[in-house]
Order: sequence, then structure tokens, then C-alpha cells
Amino acid sequence: MKHLLLFAALIACSFALLQEESIEISASNQVQSQRYSPNWASLDSRPLPAWYDQAKVGIFLHWGVFSVPSYGSAWFWHYLRQKSKGYVNFMKNNYRPGFSYPEFAPMFTAEFYDPNQWADIFQKAGARYVVLTSKHHEGYALWPSSHGFSWNSVEVGSGRDLVGELEQAIRSKTNLRFGLYNSLLEWYQSSYENDKANNWTTREFSEKKCIPTLKELVTKYKPDLLWSDGEWEAPDKYWGSEEFLAWLYNDSPVKDIIATNDRWGTGTKGVHGGFFNFADKYNPGVLVPHKWENAMTVDRYAWTYRRNAKLQDFLKPEELISTLIKTVSCGGNILVNVGPTKEGTIAVIMEERLLQMGEWLGINGEAIYGSIPWTHQNDTLTKGVWYTTNKSKSKVYAIATHWPGTKIVLGAINPVKNLSIQMLGAVGNLSWVDNAGGGIKIAVPRPDATKSKWAWTFVLNFPV
Amino acid sequence: MKHLLLFAALIACSFALLQEESIEISASNQVQSQRYSPNWASLDSRPLPAWYDQAKVGIFLHWGVFSVPSYGSAWFWHYLRQKSKGYVNFMKNNYRPGFSYPEFAPMFTAEFYDPNQWADIFQKAGARYVVLTSKHHEGYALWPSSHGFSWNSVEVGSGRDLVGELEQAIRSKTNLRFGLYNSLLEWYQSSYENDKANNWTTREFSEKKCIPTLKELVTKYKPDLLWSDGEWEAPDKYWGSEEFLAWLYNDSPVKDIIATNDRWGTGTKGVHGGFFNFADKYNPGVLVPHKWENAMTVDRYAWTYRRNAKLQDFLKPEELISTLIKTVSCGGNILVNVGPTKEGTIAVIMEERLLQMGEWLGINGEAIYGSIPWTHQNDTLTKGVWYTTNKSKSKVYAIATHWPGTKIVLGAINPVKNLSIQMLGAVGNLSWVDNAGGGIKIAVPRPDATKSKWAWTFVLNFPV
Amino acid sequence: MKHLLLFAALIACSFALLQEESIEISASNQVQSQRYSPNWASLDSRPLPAWYDQAKVGIFLHWGVFSVPSYGSAWFWHYLRQKSKGYVNFMKNNYRPGFSYPEFAPMFTAEFYDPNQWADIFQKAGARYVVLTSKHHEGYALWPSSHGFSWNSVEVGSGRDLVGELEQAIRSKTNLRFGLYNSLLEWYQSSYENDKANNWTTREFSEKKCIPTLKELVTKYKPDLLWSDGEWEAPDKYWGSEEFLAWLYNDSPVKDIIATNDRWGTGTKGVHGGFFNFADKYNPGVLVPHKWENAMTVDRYAWTYRRNAKLQDFLKPEELISTLIKTVSCGGNILVNVGPTKEGTIAVIMEERLLQMGEWLGINGEAIYGSIPWTHQNDTLTKGVWYTTNKSKSKVYAIATHWPGTKIVLGAINPVKNLSIQMLGAVGNLSWVDNAGGGIKIAVPRPDATKSKWAWTFVLNFPV
Amino acid sequence: MKHLLLFAALIACSFALLQEESIEISASNQVQSQRYSPNWASLDSRPLPAWYDQAKVGIFLHWGVFSVPSYGSAWFWHYLRQKSKGYVNFMKNNYRPGFSYPEFAPMFTAEFYDPNQWADIFQKAGARYVVLTSKHHEGYALWPSSHGFSWNSVEVGSGRDLVGELEQAIRSKTNLRFGLYNSLLEWYQSSYENDKANNWTTREFSEKKCIPTLKELVTKYKPDLLWSDGEWEAPDKYWGSEEFLAWLYNDSPVKDIIATNDRWGTGTKGVHGGFFNFADKYNPGVLVPHKWENAMTVDRYAWTYRRNAKLQDFLKPEELISTLIKTVSCGGNILVNVGPTKEGTIAVIMEERLLQMGEWLGINGEAIYGSIPWTHQNDTLTKGVWYTTNKSKSKVYAIATHWPGTKIVLGAINPVKNLSIQMLGAVGNLSWVDNAGGGIKIAVPRPDATKSKWAWTFVLNFPV
Repeated sequence: MKHLLLFAALIACSFALLQEESIEISASNQVQSQRYSPNWASLDSRPLPAWYDQAKVGIFLHWGVFSVPSYGSAWFWHYLRQKSKGYVNFMKNNYRPGFSYPEFAPMFTAEFYDPNQWADIFQKAGARYVVLTSKHHEGYALWPSSHGFSWNSVEVGSGRDLVGELEQAIRSKTNLRFGLYNSLLEWYQSSYENDKANNWTTREFSEKKCIPTLKELVTKYKPDLLWSDGEWEAPDKYWGSEEFLAWLYNDSPVKDIIATNDRWGTGTKGVHGGFFNFADKYNPGVLVPHKWENAMTVDRYAWTYRRNAKLQDFLKPEELISTLIKTVSCGGNILVNVGPTKEGTIAVIMEERLLQMGEWLGINGEAIYGSIPWTHQNDTLTKGVWYTTNKSKSKVYAIATHWPGTKIVLGAINPVKNLSIQMLGAVGNLSWVDNAGGGIKIAVPRPDATKSKWAWTFVLNFPV
Repeated sequence: MKHLLLFAALIACSFALLQEESIEISASNQVQSQRYSPNWASLDSRPLPAWYDQAKVGIFLHWGVFSVPSYGSAWFWHYLRQKSKGYVNFMKNNYRPGFSYPEFAPMFTAEFYDPNQWADIFQKAGARYVVLTSKHHEGYALWPSSHGFSWNSVEVGSGRDLVGELEQAIRSKTNLRFGLYNSLLEWYQSSYENDKANNWTTREFSEKKCIPTLKELVTKYKPDLLWSDGEWEAPDKYWGSEEFLAWLYNDSPVKDIIATNDRWGTGTKGVHGGFFNFADKYNPGVLVPHKWENAMTVDRYAWTYRRNAKLQDFLKPEELISTLIKTVSCGGNILVNVGPTKEGTIAVIMEERLLQMGEWLGINGEAIYGSIPWTHQNDTLTKGVWYTTNKSKSKVYAIATHWPGTKIVLGAINPVKNLSIQMLGAVGNLSWVDNAGGGIKIAVPRPDATKSKWAWTFVLNFPV
Repeated sequence: MKHLLLFAALIACSFALLQEESIEISASNQVQSQRYSPNWASLDSRPLPAWYDQAKVGIFLHWGVFSVPSYGSAWFWHYLRQKSKGYVNFMKNNYRPGFSYPEFAPMFTAEFYDPNQWADIFQKAGARYVVLTSKHHEGYALWPSSHGFSWNSVEVGSGRDLVGELEQAIRSKTNLRFGLYNSLLEWYQSSYENDKANNWTTREFSEKKCIPTLKELVTKYKPDLLWSDGEWEAPDKYWGSEEFLAWLYNDSPVKDIIATNDRWGTGTKGVHGGFFNFADKYNPGVLVPHKWENAMTVDRYAWTYRRNAKLQDFLKPEELISTLIKTVSCGGNILVNVGPTKEGTIAVIMEERLLQMGEWLGINGEAIYGSIPWTHQNDTLTKGVWYTTNKSKSKVYAIATHWPGTKIVLGAINPVKNLSIQMLGAVGNLSWVDNAGGGIKIAVPRPDATKSKWAWTFVLNFPV
Repeated sequence: MKHLLLFAALIACSFALLQEESIEISASNQVQSQRYSPNWASLDSRPLPAWYDQAKVGIFLHWGVFSVPSYGSAWFWHYLRQKSKGYVNFMKNNYRPGFSYPEFAPMFTAEFYDPNQWADIFQKAGARYVVLTSKHHEGYALWPSSHGFSWNSVEVGSGRDLVGELEQAIRSKTNLRFGLYNSLLEWYQSSYENDKANNWTTREFSEKKCIPTLKELVTKYKPDLLWSDGEWEAPDKYWGSEEFLAWLYNDSPVKDIIATNDRWGTGTKGVHGGFFNFADKYNPGVLVPHKWENAMTVDRYAWTYRRNAKLQDFLKPEELISTLIKTVSCGGNILVNVGPTKEGTIAVIMEERLLQMGEWLGINGEAIYGSIPWTHQNDTLTKGVWYTTNKSKSKVYAIATHWPGTKIVLGAINPVKNLSIQMLGAVGNLSWVDNAGGGIKIAVPRPDATKSKWAWTFVLNFPV
């Protein structure tokens, strides 16, 4: 809700200003040294590290004990406790009476987990960063946390530091940034339940468990990105978010490089923090006047691997790629989620979608990475055409998410003299004419003249 | 080896005769009533039921206890006993000391097994028959066999009649034929081992276990196709194959409809039986003068589901489809294998390949189903073009397995007057001219003029 | 029933004859070489090897897959299939839906099985032979049988040859005889079910599975005793019992030493074979004119270990010992059953009972081992006093199963001159007088004058 | 060490004073209302509730996740972490690589747990209180603690409130007092490890986890006895023991009735608290001038059930009973430990020992319950004779732990006129004479004149 008001407020602002700023940021990938105070006014004034906006494409990994039943949702435990019928029946039909969710943890064995192979997939997917759920709402840590008790991957299950091994692989084998997701809340941690029962007037969980764990995580793995979640039930004052962020920005080992999001307490979403996630799968189709991210899933119905998913449940490559295009066109990054299995593999259908995205980006990446939003986001006359521009605005990229046939009309493009047009993945200039109803009409080459599939980028080179 | 001699012998024969015969068969799908004697001369004289040749495309399912480790191969047990390093280490790293292969059986739970969903996939894949491993070399029966002891899916594991449920679904929800694979041998059945030790001079296993089980299977599920395997170690006389086939052809409930293959004892492959499988993945690229079948896999490396398979391990859709085309062009059926999981699902990547094949067949099926081989199998000038023809030979189908670009030369086609050419999935006639080096040269439309992907069929309508 | 008629028939016979015979036998422990014909008349004429009668005390071990649930009974599987409520509920409450009995087998791990420790217990128990259930009605073999399929202890479960290891330990560490129990029937072996359905007119199971397995067992482990069971449903002709026994007595490696029992087909119990077991726990309290055995249990309610058994379910030491005394007094051997656990241990309460029996036998063994029945079995005037005598009949043992107090009257003893009386475990002669009502009256020493507990032996030395 | 100094200091004190005090206490079983300050001087001044001294015999139950491996020791986890060879090998031989201790918890199923049956056993054992390990050093709570996270019996394992069910049974079915054991420390709780690393200068664990959990336990189950343990590594100030005890004595729901022990921090053992446990199995054989308790085990080698224990590992009944006698004679209570199984049963051998103790107490309880130490603890001339006296000292009980034979000399007894002597379990007076070397000599009846076994009580009635 709140962020809609924000829109209203900001819509009048000159968007150009924002662009200038981000250009400035990108001049140096190091945030200038300055200290921040533990209040939103100060914290929100911190510029987002430039790498983040340039990266555009990230991989999101939902992995945890929920990957063992790998049924329904990453919220399996929650729904089971709420006696949601599907989950209750699943348990009843497949496990001994009394089998409880924590008893899944020993089966989180990850025997095929090969982080180097994962890293290779993510690199080939064209991603520039990866974000792993180091600890989801269930509270199970994918690393040997020194907070909490035997509810982590080294103590129960695989016996491995799943976070640390991925960090190692990503940093030694790829040039991707390494990010970590962290759920502030832990559903059934007793101190959390107590604080909640006390209407957040006590802060035992946040002080003794949540924040220490988070600081340990940051200090140990030095993530480039911290993806906060699980914030909604309690206010930021409960979480101590401002203090934590001040520490993160001023004193943590990642103070200059860390990017973070907006989930820091009831009502902070789309209001405070670094980039904005707003709601899950947020993708408004209009320019958002603050750097944002579309965290979305390849499986339409779940963030976690589901053993009984079907082909139709997964985005088609063209759906994934057009979502990417639309997101980037409107100023967002896309964070593409896949759910690894309890065995430590990435289901092949997900690997395929990622590599298809990578194939597309291999040809069309020029229009994506390091691009900035253009004056128009989508075309005024032809549906499904989204725009980006390069930093100097000398090139405009019109990306058609459907094959246009033999001609394409771009209503948003002024028919200026000496405008030259190419298609990424194809050779040579395309001929064009003034369009009767305004804009231009381009002669589209045969599809077999381009290497691109699923979406096609027209590069409009404006004479300087 | 032997079948190569057969080639030599038969290559001189008029192939037209064979074609005539199969045309005759197809006049009635019921084999004429006649009794066969238990010797190959008589048995081999039985015409193959016409449905089989017309079906062209089948689905092969390798499912069994090997689907529980789902590691390496359907021969897991065998390799483990042979102390193959990879298998030994897999066990050592993941199971308690002493854990044995039969102990996997209780985990073959099939909790997500929905045979109606499977049937739907196979129908959408364009398959006309399905073949399930009712019992592989391990001896575990996927139905409640009354022979053997507690080594079947009703006694241990899912508690379900996996064969019966699939039969029900296939027959009530689709028009596919229902086939069953059966391994004659059972590696570690003691009576088999004894007979083997006795150099096949005793026949306890074949008489008391193998044949009774097979007859039970046939009688109970009335398969349209019986896919025999595991024959190689012992001669047909040991197995009693001639007697069994005489019973199958004369007295069994499926005597008129059953199709069967050629694996009936040492040396029968490519020599005796119904259609010939020759070796696994047999696909010679030349016309085979006996109805044959290419049993091949979507996973390049295994017949069973492998939990740690990667995208690159799976055939690309164009590879699968060109294999199909080449096979049919040379007179074969294709039997496309996928390995279901222990949970009872078909891995989504395999579902996708099957549906891609179905998408292609939906457009190009005219060139496949009910087709017969043409004078030429592949083109004399352009590589990767395979031919089929319709029964009346009024149409020849030239199927290009690569996108030809703007022109395609077909060296095998006589430039006769009034030859009209279309592309399946596209509208209108294609223009053509005599090719300088012989044959014709066709103007290929833009790829976006056809719905077909992966391979493209040119229909050559010869004037009557 | 039938054996009661036998009684009537034999009661007139001079029992002395039998005694003479057994004395003769004991002169040599080797049965004289002679060949037997496969008919009962001939087979029944074979004298029982002398060691058996002299041994008197054996240990019976019921161990198998039923030891995994260790609930209710060794007939767990049978009752479960019959949907006996207690068993159905036990499964429902403790296992996943569909969990089947054969799925218990992998849990038969025997990790603490130390056959040397077992052997030591049995030796200390005073036993002279041991009988292990090598295969009970469930058909699971405790050795790597080359018949049947993966339903034995080497294939599934412990991975160990449980029979072979015990044989080794018994023979190398003790002087006990090694015996094997074998169930002829196997409830759910399909060939058995078929033969049964055919009203035993077919003999596939007996010919192909039962007898070969039994011969393998005998040949491999050379048991001194073969304890047959599971015979009742089918006639001896079905089992081929006469042929088997002829082989066993004439040609097997144990032909001279083997003792066997009477369970060889419907109606053979108490009629044919070696020693007679009659019904389970048979203990008639009168002299039986054929060597017999009382197979009984330390747990009143079960032959198998029951995890939820309570103290009151076990015989008290005095109950066990008085049963032993009564049995031996009437010409029987006692076969004391304990049920080992799935872990391979003997529950401590059972170890204690065995060692208590051994403690008693250590003092009173003279009255038991090698003894023969006396003219009277129990006393005519004092209840609970049982008699045995030595081979030369110079000594009569009157064993009181209750502490008699200060005096004991033995009505069956003639007050002959120079009769000297001692108590086993005590020093010195006891004084006695003629008893008014006949027999003698002995002055019983203070209990603290004897080492014996639970039962007390008065040795009556008759002057020669 | 320290308590030996205490001895030296107190040995001079008049013991009569202590006795006077305890008589006074027993006048009312309610501790008079008074407030205690959180310092040892005040806390130690609180009189022990009278019920405790009168009870004399308790049952100790060690039950927890260690009952799953039930191997070696209740310290299984600790030894495994320390790589103790036996434990490491046990894991290696029986579990998959990487199997961790917390993964045992799901197997703590307690399917046969019948607290009413337990209560019945304890009652029949003659015990007057029971103490259950509600939480041992492993930290696993046998009740649904609202502190900690999924490491309790309701979350993982049986799904049952094991503490609550026992409390219910004890209180509704017996007249026993209900006590709870609590380990202050939790080995691998991270906050504990941190506080330890900080040399106890931080108190996160004690403040946030230990004490709140303990208060919850007390408030929820209102135990009559709190048996503290796990105190030794940290000082009482760290634990906050004085504050906790002040709360317990002043404000808790059990303030008037609670008895507690002496394990409240480094060095408190034998110095501060309620009754003194000193070391485990403390039994000095001399009068201890402070109410104390001998916590000992029926299994000589372990507090927890061991699946591979042997008969010789368990105390014989006479050993258990003589330990009881010696303990009570010296002013102690005995707390007899048995380790229930993971299935929820009490091993039968332990049930037997308890019932044997109960049998003895049924006859000899007069000399135990409510008795007080006498001037002498053991006899001056005859070894193995221990004394108690009744509150009015009119009767002295001389308990012989070996059968004395026909005569017994009691050197500590003055041969006063009109002294009458009986034996518990026997009828009539025993004759005696002055003993030449001092004391008296009693004529011992025949053992069969008394019902008592294992130890025998001579009641010396002094004329008033």
C-alpha cells in the first residue's frame, strides 16, 4: 500500500536526476566512505553500490529442510501446523504417525551437491549474482551457526557448510557476486513466539538470536548482497534494523560493497533500505523511481523444489525471458528463483531454463547489462516491445518479446535522419521507413538470419 | 554378427514384396487364425500384427528397484556385486555398512504415481504404444506375481500393482497399445544361477520361474506387445522360447494382436521372432529388410532415472526428433525410453522432450504414422534429409533435420511435371526448379511461415 | 489324538525293554551302519543316537524377521495378514501406511550378535544341545541359502551367516551338540500356496524349494539334530519326508549322529520319526514310552522376543526348573526356548533364567544328565517330588520341587536296610525312618546346609 | 575434596542435635513459612521437608536421546565428539557416514511407554519417590519446553509429553513423590559454549535458557524434588543458583514441599543446598552429618539403558539390597537408577531387581522407612551387619546382609535384661545369650522359618 503513495509522491520528480545519480555511482563501484546514523533518513541516503544496478540478473536459491518433503511450498511446516488439508494428508499417507517436520532434517543429505557445477550453471545462465537462502522462516541454517542449537546443516543432515561451499565456488570459479538471503523471523523459535505474544514489547529473539546470527553470517561469508525477509510481523524497532544497517554500512567487513533490500520491519517494504523488492514477483510494467528487484520463480507455484511438479508448472523460456526484459526495462533487476533438491542437485528442467536465459543473454546482453531505463518503457504502438538504453543514450534497444513477422512498427521512435538499425544476433543494417501513424516501420529479416530465439533486440543507433 | 549375414542374404530380395505383405497385413489388424508349431521356421512365418508397423512411435519405461538409488544404471545391482568402484563408493558414502540392494525395495514408494497423468503425457507425445519393464534383470516384479516371493511391488515398496494401474490408464484414457517388457533372466535368482552353473543343461529356472511368470503376465494384463530381454546368456532351447511363442501365438488371450521382438535366446537377436531390436539403440541409417525397432533413450547414458543427471546428458529435442526420422525412414519404429522416479513421477525434462516430440508429430505426423520406407532413405545431395512415402506412394515426404535456409536441393527427386510441393505446418505451395546437378531445388519459406520446429517436412505430391 | 492311542497300545509293553535298549545304544554313540528304506516301518526302526537321551537339556532359539517388530508372536506376519486387530493397530500406529512385513528384514541387523557369548551362556546354562530356527514359517533363512531369493540374512539385514557363525562358536567353544530347526512350510512362498490350493496334488514347493533347501542346510552345517516343523497342513507324502529321512539316515554327512523329531506331515506327530515332540510345550506328567522332548518357552506367551514383555510374563526360576525335572522324570528332554533380539542379544532376563538353570544343574546334574526314568515318576505320598534313577539303578533321585520343611516322606521308596541318603549340594548322610503310612521319612537339613536353590535332590543309595 | 573438610569440621558436633531437628521436621510435613534470602547462609538454613528423609528409597530414571543408541553411556554425544574410539566405531559400523547424534532423536519413539505400568513397578519396588531426567546434558527436553527449539520430545521423536504423562501416573496411581532431574548445562547449546569461552563472565545461557527453562519446569509440573546436575563447570554465581533457590523456596508453587540437592555450581557439592549427593554413587559407610542421598545404578556401568548389557553387568539382588541397607544405616536415602529404553519400556531385568527390592522392603520396611541412624552404623564384631533405629529408639534394627548361619553375634548390643528379639518375616522370639567377647549371641532360626531373602532384620526391643 504504502509504496503506492510513494509513487504518487515521486511521479512528479524528474527521472533524469535519478539516472544522473546512478551514472555517478557507476563511476566507482566503491561506495564513498562516510558514516551513517541508525535512522532511516541517514541510512536511506546511502547510494546503492553500483555493481548491483549493472548486474541486472541474479539467481535466487530456495533450499532448506522444506526441500526434503519438496511438496507444496517452502512454507510446508507452517501449513502443516495450520492443519492445511493437503499437507496433513501428505504426511498421513507417507509417514509414520507423529512424524514431525524437524524429523525431515536428517534426510537433507545433499549427497550430489557440487557447488562448482552450480556456479558453472549460474555463470552460463548469464547471471551476475546469486542469492542463497542461508536461513528461511523455518530457522534451519545452511551453515554451522554458532547461534541456535543443532538446527543447521552441519549438525543435522548433510554435515556440510552449504553456504560456505557455495561462496567458495562462486568466488573462485565465477565473477558473480555472492548474496545471502536471511529470514529475520523463525516461526517456532520459542523466543520469537514469546516476543510475538508480548506484542513485540520484548526483544529477546531479535537481540539474542536474530541479530547475532545475522552478524555472524555477514562476518563469516562477507556477502555482496543481503536479502532480508520475514520482517512483516514486527516493526523495524523490534528487529533493531536501523542499528543493524548502521553497523552493516559503517563497520561490517562488507560496508563498501553490500547491497541490501527493503524488508526490515512492518511497512518498510518499498519505503526504506537499499533496492526495493516490494511484494514477491513484483513487476509493475511501469518505471519505478527507485532501484528495485523482481524476485520471481521458474516454477509458477513454488519457491522450493516440488517433486511432483509438471512441465506446465514451469515458465516457458519465452515467458522467463520476457519477464526479464520487462523488469529491466522498468528499472528493475530480476532475481530468478530455482529450488535445489534435498540431494543437492538443480532439477534439469530448471537448469535448462537458466541456460536458455543464458543463451539469450549471450546474444542480447548488450541491451540488458549496464543498460538504463529509457524515456519509454514499452512501445506506444506495438505491444510487447520493451525499451532500454545505454548509459550515453546513443543507443536505444527495442526488444520484441514476440516474433514480429516481416515488419515491426516502433511508435516511440522518432524517425531521425541517419538512424541506423541492427538486430542483435544478426548481421547488417535493417531498412526502415517512417510509419504512417508515427514512429518508424522496420523491415524484419527472416528468423533464420538471427541467432536469437524467444525475443529479439533492435538496436537503434542515433546519430551523435 | 549373424544379422549382417541375413542382410547380405536378403539385400537381393525385392523389398517391394515386403511392402506388399505389410500392406496386406494392414488390411486387417487381426492376424488370420492359423496354428504355429514350436519351431522358428513356423513361428517366424507369422506376420507381425499390422498395428505395430503403423504405430511407429512408442514409449519405453525403465522402472524398478534401480529407480531407488537412481544412480548410474539400471544394472546397479550387477555393478555393485562386481565391485565396480563408482557403485561401491556410492554405497559406502551414503548408506550404513552392509546395506544391500534388496534393501532399496522398501523405498520404491511411488507416492506420486498417477498413471492417468502418465497416459496423458504419452498421448501428447504422439506415441502409439508404451512398453513398461514389468520385471528387469533384478527380478523385482512391478505386479503382484504369484511366482517368486515378496520381491514385487505389492509385497515390498509401494504396495501397488504398478503394471495393472498403468494398463488401466492406458486403455481407458488413450488409444495407445499397451506393451510389457520382461527380462527372461533374473541375475541372482538361485535357480537361474544353478542352471547357469550347469551350463544350461538343467532348466529349473526357465521351467519353474521364468515361463510361468511370463504366462501369468500375459494372461493377466493381455499386453499388445511383449518386449523380451535378458536372453543372451542361454540358448532358446533353455528358455523354451519356441514353445512359449507357440503358446503365445496359438493359445494365449493375445494370440491375434501380440507383437513381440527378437530376444529369445543366444543368437536369436536379428534372426528370429517378430520385429527385430538387434542391439540397444540400433539405428543403422540404411533400410533394414525386416521390421525393426530402435529402442533408445532420452538420457544419453542410462535407461533408468539418474538423480544426478545434467542437462547435457539429455538429447536435445532436435536430436530426438532427427533420430525418430532417421529410424522411421529406414523402416524402423522408435521406442523412446524415459526412466520414471522412485516417487512415481516422470522427470520434467523428460516430460518436456516427450511433449516436444509430440508437438513435432502433431504437425508432421502425416510423414511418420502409417508411412512406409521409400526407394531412397536419405537424399543423395543434401545431408540430413530423410524420406518416407505413403502407402500408395503418391506422396513422398522429404524431412529436413536441419533448417535448410532459403533453398533446398533434393537430389533423389525426379523433376516431374506437375509435381506440387508443400511444407507441413505451412500454408501454400512451394515453388521449385530443376536443380543443375540433378533433382530439384525448392524455395524454402521463411521459418516464421511454418509452425514446425526442429525438423521440416516437404510433401512432394506426384501427379497420379 | 493319535498318540493317545499309541499310549494305550504301548502301555502294556515292558518298559524295562526300552531301558535295556537305551543302555545298549549308549554303549556306542555311533548308530550302527545299516540302510533304511523310505518307509516309516524301516525309518522308525532306527535307534535314536544315544547322545540325545543323555543330553536331557537343550536351548531353543527363535530368531528371524519376527524379531524385528518383536511384538506379539513369531506368527506376526500371519496374524497381520489375517487382519488380527492388535497387529493391524501396531502397524498403523508405528509405521508409514503400506509398510509390509518383508520391509522389516533390512532392520534385522544383529549388530551385537556375538555367538561366542551365546555359546558361553548356553554352556553355563547346563544345556547339552542348542537348536536354532534356521528358517521359520516366514521362510527367511538365517544363512545364505542358494535356494530362494534375497530372503535370507546375508542378502537382507545383517549381511551375516547367522547359522554358520553360531555353529562355529558352539563347536569350537563348547561341547554342546548343534541342532537346527527348519519349517517345512513357508506361508507366502507362491509355490507353497499353489500346492496348497491344489490340495497337495502338486509338489512344486516340496520338490523344488523345501527339500533342496533342507538338504543344503544339512550338508552345509552338519547338524546333530534336525528339528522339523511346519508339517501339519500337508501329508508326509507331499513333503517327501520318508525319502528325505532315508537320505538323512543313509547318505547324509550326519547319518550316524543325527537326531530328529516327529513333525514330518499331517498326523506324524507322536507317531513317526525320532524323538517325539507331540504338541508344543507337551509335558504330560506320566512316563511316555518313546523318547520325547518338551519344547517350551521362558516367556510364557511367545517363542520370539517381545519388546514389551513384562517380568510376570517370564517363568520364575523355580517354574523353569520344576518343568525341567518333571520332563526328565517322565523320559523327556527339555528344550528351553529364548528369543534373541534383532540386535543379536539375548535379553538379560532370559540370560538370567538360563544361568539360574545352569546353577541348579551344576549341583543337581547327576540326577538329570544320563539319568533314566525310574519305576515311579512322582511320589505316591508327597506332591511335587519327581524321580529319576541312574543307569545301573543303584541310585534313585527324588527331586523335591518345593522346599519340604524339616521332614519329607517318600512313599515310593522301600525302607530297605542300609539305604543311605544324601542331598546334592549338601554334606553328609541324612537320617531317615520308616514312615507310618509306608515308604520312608527323611530328616531334612536346614536350607543353609545345602547350596541348592529352587529344587532339592535326595539321593537314595540302595545297597548292592 | 571440600566435603571431607566439612566432615572433619562436623564430626565433633553432637549428632543428636541433627536427630532432634529431623524429629521436629517430621512433626509437620509442611515447611514453616518464612522467606529466604538469595545467599547460601539463608538458603542452607531451610529445613529439608520431612517427607524426604522418611522416604528413604527413590527410583532414578535416565531417559533421553542417549536411550536411542543405548550404547555405552548417557554421555554418548560427548564421547563421540571427543572421538572416543568405541563410540566412533559404533557409529561407523552401524550408520551412514555423517549420521549425527541429533539424528537419533526422531527414533526416540516411546511406542510402548505406559506410565501407569511404570508407576505400578515403582510402587511395588517399595520406592517412595521417583526422579526423571527431564533434561540431561544433551539438552533434549522430555516435555514441550517453550524454551529452546525443536529439541524436545513433543517436537521430535515420540510426540509426547513424557514428563507430564509420568507425573500424571505417579500422582494418580501411587503415593510416591514426583521428582525431576535437571541438568543446568547443555553441552552444545551455543550460548553455553560462548559463556564458557568467556570464562563465565557472560551469562547468556544461564539467564536466557537455563533458569527460564527450570522455572517453567517447576511451575508446570510442580515437582516434590528437584535434582540438579551439570553444575560443575561454572560457579554458582554464573548459574544464579542462589536467586533461583530463593525463588524456589519463597515464591514457587512448590515452596513448602520441594526437596533439592547440592549441585548448584562448582564446589557446592556436599556444601550447600538441600540433601547432599556428593559424587555419584557416594556411599561412605560412615554416618554423614547431613542428610544425603546415594544415587546409584542397577547396571554397574551405565546410567542409561545399554542394549548390549549382560547379566553380570547388573547388581545381584543381594548387592542392591545391601547397598540400600548400608546407605540408610548411614543416614542416606538411596536413589536406584534404571534406564528405560527408547521404546518406553523398563528392561525386564531392571523390573525384576526393583520388584526384588520391593519384596524385601515389603518384609523389612519397618527397619528402613522412617528409621533414623543409630549410635552405631555397623556392628563391632560381625561384618555386614548394619543398624537403624526407630524414632523413639525403643527398637534397634540389626540387618544382616549375609545369612549368618545358626548363630549371630552382635557386639554393639548391650545385653540388657528383658531384651526381646524377633526377626522380620518370621514368627516368634529368638533366644539369645551374652556373648563371651561382649554383646549378645542370638540363635538364628532355620532360613525356612522366615519369608525374607537376601538380608535379614533382627529387631531388638529394648525394655522401656
